Amino acid sequence: MNSNLFFKKKNLKIKKIFPNIKTVKNFIINEVKPLHLAKESDLTFFDSIKYKSQATNTKASACITTEKLEKYLPAHIKRIVVKNVLFELAMSLKKIYPFADIDYPDTSLKKAINNKYKLVKFGNNVLVGKNAKISTNTLIGSNSIIEHNVIIGKECVIGSGVIIKNSIIGDRVVIQDDCKIGQKGFGFIPINNKNVKFPHIGKVIIENDVEIGSGCTIDRGSVDDTSLGNNTYLDNQVHIAHNVKIGSNCMIAGQVGFAGSSKIGNNVSIGGQAGISGHLTIGNNVKIGGGSGVVKDIKDNQIVMGYPAVPFRDFLKKNKK
Amino acid sequence: MNSNLFFKKKNLKIKKIFPNIKTVKNFIINEVKPLHLAKESDLTFFDSIKYKSQATNTKASACITTEKLEKYLPAHIKRIVVKNVLFELAMSLKKIYPFADIDYPDTSLKKAINNKYKLVKFGNNVLVGKNAKISTNTLIGSNSIIEHNVIIGKECVIGSGVIIKNSIIGDRVVIQDDCKIGQKGFGFIPINNKNVKFPHIGKVIIENDVEIGSGCTIDRGSVDDTSLGNNTYLDNQVHIAHNVKIGSNCMIAGQVGFAGSSKIGNNVSIGGQAGISGHLTIGNNVKIGGGSGVVKDIKDNQIVMGYPAVPFRDFLKKNKK
Amino acid sequence: MNSNLFFKKKNLKIKKIFPNIKTVKNFIINEVKPLHLAKESDLTFFDSIKYKSQATNTKASACITTEKLEKYLPAHIKRIVVKNVLFELAMSLKKIYPFADIDYPDTSLKKAINNKYKLVKFGNNVLVGKNAKISTNTLIGSNSIIEHNVIIGKECVIGSGVIIKNSIIGDRVVIQDDCKIGQKGFGFIPINNKNVKFPHIGKVIIENDVEIGSGCTIDRGSVDDTSLGNNTYLDNQVHIAHNVKIGSNCMIAGQVGFAGSSKIGNNVSIGGQAGISGHLTIGNNVKIGGGSGVVKDIKDNQIVMGYPAVPFRDFLKKNKK
Repeated sequence: MNSNLFFKKKNLKIKKIFPNIKTVKNFIINEVKPLHLAKESDLTFFDSIKYKSQATNTKASACITTEKLEKYLPAHIKRIVVKNVLFELAMSLKKIYPFADIDYPDTSLKKAINNKYKLVKFGNNVLVGKNAKISTNTLIGSNSIIEHNVIIGKECVIGSGVIIKNSIIGDRVVIQDDCKIGQKGFGFIPINNKNVKFPHIGKVIIENDVEIGSGCTIDRGSVDDTSLGNNTYLDNQVHIAHNVKIGSNCMIAGQVGFAGSSKIGNNVSIGGQAGISGHLTIGNNVKIGGGSGVVKDIKDNQIVMGYPAVPFRDFLKKNKK
Repeated sequence: MNSNLFFKKKNLKIKKIFPNIKTVKNFIINEVKPLHLAKESDLTFFDSIKYKSQATNTKASACITTEKLEKYLPAHIKRIVVKNVLFELAMSLKKIYPFADIDYPDTSLKKAINNKYKLVKFGNNVLVGKNAKISTNTLIGSNSIIEHNVIIGKECVIGSGVIIKNSIIGDRVVIQDDCKIGQKGFGFIPINNKNVKFPHIGKVIIENDVEIGSGCTIDRGSVDDTSLGNNTYLDNQVHIAHNVKIGSNCMIAGQVGFAGSSKIGNNVSIGGQAGISGHLTIGNNVKIGGGSGVVKDIKDNQIVMGYPAVPFRDFLKKNKK
Repeated sequence: MNSNLFFKKKNLKIKKIFPNIKTVKNFIINEVKPLHLAKESDLTFFDSIKYKSQATNTKASACITTEKLEKYLPAHIKRIVVKNVLFELAMSLKKIYPFADIDYPDTSLKKAINNKYKLVKFGNNVLVGKNAKISTNTLIGSNSIIEHNVIIGKECVIGSGVIIKNSIIGDRVVIQDDCKIGQKGFGFIPINNKNVKFPHIGKVIIENDVEIGSGCTIDRGSVDDTSLGNNTYLDNQVHIAHNVKIGSNCMIAGQVGFAGSSKIGNNVSIGGQAGISGHLTIGNNVKIGGGSGVVKDIKDNQIVMGYPAVPFRDFLKKNKK
């Protein structure tokens, strides 16, 4: 069985993918998951000391890692020791999920018909993919595309020209015109003349009562998911990269950009055109001034501004004269 | 009669909306307008001492305001004294204009046909809403959507994938591919787990000879309008928030962003990726360097640069070493 | 014969365009080209001392220039000496290429049919213009538009809602949803109340194995071309202005913007939201930090960051305290 809703999976045994490893039990890989989410029969990866505690507690059955890091893994886990963890992971993902490295156009799209979605109202020329689920009283504007297996809750209002793929969307969500949600993120292994595209098997999860402005792009997760919490509001032209997790009740102003894998708390407000670097943790109730460039973690309740962003008091002092 | 071209209005008496106020004359609210534009039988609002002189001269018949501010209003005006002016305003707007809080898809859209717009040329799959007016010799590219009641002047060239709603557009205007014009802006009353969406009953006004690059977003006004003056040119991916007013002969480079309600003079040039904070007044003939973050009003004829933006001479000095 | 693939050309003699010049040989202008690309019978222009060495070596037959600069041109070249080179050039281009000053909708677009492009797979409602060439095993998503004469190589994956015009695209190129490629750039001669639009007769050239994220805008060249080298990857919402040339193996993160005519080397990586000013030369192997504002040329192998961008070491020092 494939527990990945959006990407076809091949049931490959671990020795098929890594022929050179010695392993007692040649199990079929169930899923590829991050350290903290992996379960028995899953393959995971561990490429930075930053994730040591997650490594210690992982429930995965096999882990791609390096010689230096393997000692932190539980004893029972099968190690696949390599030089370049992400390269090896990309190669494995491509074998297990052969269609996640490029956004191949959805060939199951058909013009939406109301007798299939009885209580959904469609504009003109709406295209819906196979097995998409759209709940009652949701409205979808003209020329929008809802790809296969996407789930959309009830009483949502989706604008015109919107493209949604690989996403699970809650109730009463508003998505304005021309948003692109669930496409592959900016992930690849740079190799001269022939980059290796990193398969993105994650999805986008949007919780209830979210509002998303016009022209936003929200990339799906690579191995993990990208998510927006309840009642979070985004202005126009916001860019959210793969694996970013934004909490509840946040306010994100126009043209803000998030690099990959950052985690934003609840009740965070971010001014227009601010940028959040990758792999950061931003606490709850944080306020980030417009145009700021955040390059470090921020604790709860802080107010920061500037490029690079500093506590607001320091920003004012710095720019006094 | 409804003087709002784009949003259905209910003819409600003032006591229906504010049952707790005592009022001698229980008049039907004609329109909801900003202080300086309101006329007899209109409802207005006054929430900041910044607008004191406009309050003193308003012609409105009723005004939502606070205990502190009500003394600045003319004697004859019915005060609706509240704690949170914008919250109360949002609630009133929702009652009077029930469909302005979300961009509900236009159900009147139909494939454009030339026998209705004889001297207009349409690309493929253009959708046009009820009562849209498009003047002679205007061209509209494929897959574009012109929603109900939109007015477009003569000799305009609208690209492909463009979505226009709640807008009045002059003559010889060029709008490149994929622009989104007239959608609801980023306005809401933040309330934990259930923000209140601020109805946007304003429109976008684009004067003659304007050119708008590809992928721009221009939000309509909330209570006021958003506007672009004659012969102003915008590059790609510019974001203009609600109520922003840009003068004539301006040059706005790529990826510039305007927060809400700022007023930009004539002959202003703004370099790429600059950001203009909300509620500012930028004078005529101002030049703003690329990447600047403007957080204060700027007088006529100034040249500024930096984040925060300072006079150009100071910027150079600051960055000398 | 018209050597311009995309824009109709009138065969006008030089005296028809410049009636006031005295010229011995009244030749038909073949093409309008930059100094270094012009050949016999071509018209070129020379408006800045920056291009002195290119002027000295140009093979053009005629050149629009100023009194100050004409002395640098080879003796045999017919000079058209004017006050405002770009204005005169715009007027000449409009005469020779009458349809390049505005993106007039492509009236040759028709619904794609597979019996014309046998080994291409189209999504729903794809529109293709006259003489477009699309090679084998290329996939094109729904609602995308490929305008007349565009060339797309083999094994490309073009997403949904993509608009491509005036472009030549190599093999195995991936273009994600909603990109706009080949539209007219932000070029005009500012004149009060009636700017003169600068005709853009150039194209966009995208080499093999390029990947372009969702919602990017890439303007075509004005007189020169805009180009992306092999294996260069762009994240979402990147803006590339006219005449920009980006080398091979570059990594451009989300929301980066390039002003016109800059030249970027190979193996350059640029962090999110950085901006590159116009007419710059960025060397090979350069790394530009996220949010930077680059306003000067950068030599090979440099790492820079900041606004304005400075060597990374200086940036750290500056922001230490």
